[in-house]
Amino acid sequence: MIIIELNKRQELIIQIVKERGPITGEAIADQLNLTRATLRPDLAILTMAGYLEARPRVGYFYTGKTGGQLLSEAVRKLMVQDYQSLPVVVDKNVSVYDAICTMFLEDVGTLFIVDHDSLLTGVVSRKDLLRASLGKQELTAVPVNIIMTRMPNITVCQREDSLYEVAKKLIEKQIDAMPVVKYTNRGAEVTGRITKTNITRAFVDLVNNEVL
Amino acid sequence: MIIIELNKRQELIIQIVKERGPITGEAIADQLNLTRATLRPDLAILTMAGYLEARPRVGYFYTGKTGGQLLSEAVRKLMVQDYQSLPVVVDKNVSVYDAICTMFLEDVGTLFIVDHDSLLTGVVSRKDLLRASLGKQELTAVPVNIIMTRMPNITVCQREDSLYEVAKKLIEKQIDAMPVVKYTNRGAEVTGRITKTNITRAFVDLVNNEVL
Repeated sequence: MIIIELNKRQELIIQIVKERGPITGEAIADQLNLTRATLRPDLAILTMAGYLEARPRVGYFYTGKTGGQLLSEAVRKLMVQDYQSLPVVVDKNVSVYDAICTMFLEDVGTLFIVDHDSLLTGVVSRKDLLRASLGKQELTAVPVNIIMTRMPNITVCQREDSLYEVAKKLIEKQIDAMPVVKYTNRGAEVTGRITKTNITRAFVDLVNNEVL
Repeated sequence: MIIIELNKRQELIIQIVKERGPITGEAIADQLNLTRATLRPDLAILTMAGYLEARPRVGYFYTGKTGGQLLSEAVRKLMVQDYQSLPVVVDKNVSVYDAICTMFLEDVGTLFIVDHDSLLTGVVSRKDLLRASLGKQELTAVPVNIIMTRMPNITVCQREDSLYEVAKKLIEKQIDAMPVVKYTNRGAEVTGRITKTNITRAFVDLVNNEVL
């Protein structure tokens, strides 16, 4: 994969083709007071990059694609399975107090709640637990399933999903984490956890060249 | 900015220059049974992309740079000021209870604590408040400065910092948010807030082509 900053001349060529395309290489060269030969590498680069399309006997077209689109495609290929963490699950019958302890012990911001078949039934966040802890109830007496967000109001993803789609949902739904599930005939089994921390790590990896 | 998938021939050229460089364009062409003219666009692209360097009378060198390095540089240019949110601050003398209320009201995961001069003196996270809420103390009686993380143990950033450096620190320090500060002769004024949500948004923007 190659990344190149466009030079002034290439920007100018794109501008010309955008305004006057389809246009021949000769006509572009004329307009820039350059020879066709001088322009050849620039035109080759712009065509390879997908900015321009060349049709024999007609000339160059502007494709409407921008430079970011291929970066876009590369980032889009990052998958949940390459960035997910281990899920932390608790049984739906444990108390809110025990759920809070598990959260501190495991140092996570979100717990996934499962039923006796180990199937996903709910999610609790630090925010849910903080809200509960302000209430008048005895935390050791209230089961976590009373305060959890329940299926089907839980946003889930699968390991083959793109990290980008998950990141977008985390933003849209204003949540910090999402369970990674595997559907079986029994229901949704929790197999992983994707959080904004995982996305932040992927962002850092982009710079560290561990991604592309 | 251009992004191009390398074609087979370009990969081959890099391989040849890696092994035999410095090498002239003619010698590369010979080895591939092609003319110098055929190779010209490929060599131009590889040179522009920073893979190869051409020195007159000597030939082409392999620079050792990889495709990801320029993407790297692009991501590195994203700045805090383009992604920061508004900070939510509370006075260091407010009660833990009031701090929790502010957190819910403003719907943030981290509060910045300021002194009577509006200078940064501490940070409290949802986790700190949850821990405090489990204690035996009356939350309305305990000032937030008792439980806050204090200067100089707070990691801060400035608006001109790169978003990448901030993302890296959020991961390393295992924190969710960082105050953006401006240093004056009085101390550190809080001017913004960077969270993993902001980084996740930047990640999404990379795909949406709103960045490069």
